[in-house]
Amino acid sequence: MPGDPIGEAVQQLKRFPGIGEKTATRLVYWLLRAPDGTARDMAEALLALGDGVRPCSVCCDLTNADPCVRCADLKRDSSLVCVVEEPQDVLAFERSGEFRGRYHVLHGALSPLDGITPDQLMIRPLLERLRGSEVEEVILATNPTVEGDATALYLARLLNPIGVRVTRLAHGISVGTEIEYADAVSLARALENRQEFR
Amino acid sequence: MPGDPIGEAVQQLKRFPGIGEKTATRLVYWLLRAPDGTARDMAEALLALGDGVRPCSVCCDLTNADPCVRCADLKRDSSLVCVVEEPQDVLAFERSGEFRGRYHVLHGALSPLDGITPDQLMIRPLLERLRGSEVEEVILATNPTVEGDATALYLARLLNPIGVRVTRLAHGISVGTEIEYADAVSLARALENRQEFR
Repeated sequence: MPGDPIGEAVQQLKRFPGIGEKTATRLVYWLLRAPDGTARDMAEALLALGDGVRPCSVCCDLTNADPCVRCADLKRDSSLVCVVEEPQDVLAFERSGEFRGRYHVLHGALSPLDGITPDQLMIRPLLERLRGSEVEEVILATNPTVEGDATALYLARLLNPIGVRVTRLAHGISVGTEIEYADAVSLARALENRQEFR
Repeated sequence: MPGDPIGEAVQQLKRFPGIGEKTATRLVYWLLRAPDGTARDMAEALLALGDGVRPCSVCCDLTNADPCVRCADLKRDSSLVCVVEEPQDVLAFERSGEFRGRYHVLHGALSPLDGITPDQLMIRPLLERLRGSEVEEVILATNPTVEGDATALYLARLLNPIGVRVTRLAHGISVGTEIEYADAVSLARALENRQEFR
């Protein structure tokens, strides 16, 4: 219906993945009852997203500064680069609080069936970044999927000849998982990668 | 982090009920990959919500026109008023396609424990609307909850002396289902089988 702000807002919020008509309607009516300025604050945050966010010229993470805050942070270890598929993965590592090196965001994983080939990922910027740099180790932190594993294998073959150390994340049972409930593949991997008890 | 559009957008979307940090993050990164203008279109729809939407002076539904499109529609039956708790309930009836009368939105249900008393609901506008009008029947379509039933009972006691016919929805909708989420067929049946409120 033209000129119907409620219907239009529902249609717009429905565009989000995983948000259907009923959820969008619930959100819109919540907004209509929310304190003054709530809808405006949200709208401004969305506008700022559209205007200010670009890939960092160093790590390809999405950012409003170039280089991004993590690439500009002199306290981070420049000899270590963690390669991830998506910007969200960077946030996951940051939440862990354990990683103080640099990142590189591929923006996807190889998937020939979906038409995702190496030149569509940020692989060339990674190679250019490593050339003549102080990077000593590249951690391949792609997802444990067919596409992620294929991407890691492809990158390992490209990076090994450069002379940089190439590592991947350890697989095993997640912290807090009871052995009884661990999935078979993780348990097998945890056995295979068992470590000295000190 | 000030000046961080991604973080700010996540914080804003997290304000929605039922949307936590992980979902908000997923939505923001989806937006960053969405076609140009998607974030702007959403933002404009949210702004239009904040600016243009007010309660209709007749039925109290939320609208950008006054009277709202349904109150202004001469083809709808003015002798029949369906009283609902929330604007979302109007949409649910409209989806059923069975109701061609008018609506009245209470904006809540009586709940003394939460401090919701009759004067906080749009009961006075309903009484003023009925006074000397052509309305012959009022359908009490509050939710099948303690609060909804109490509200219906309260309204029935107010409306019966006026001489208007007071009915309620039949139990075509399953007990415990909120009107907003009822399926269209059950809601249509509930309208068809409405009964005298005694």
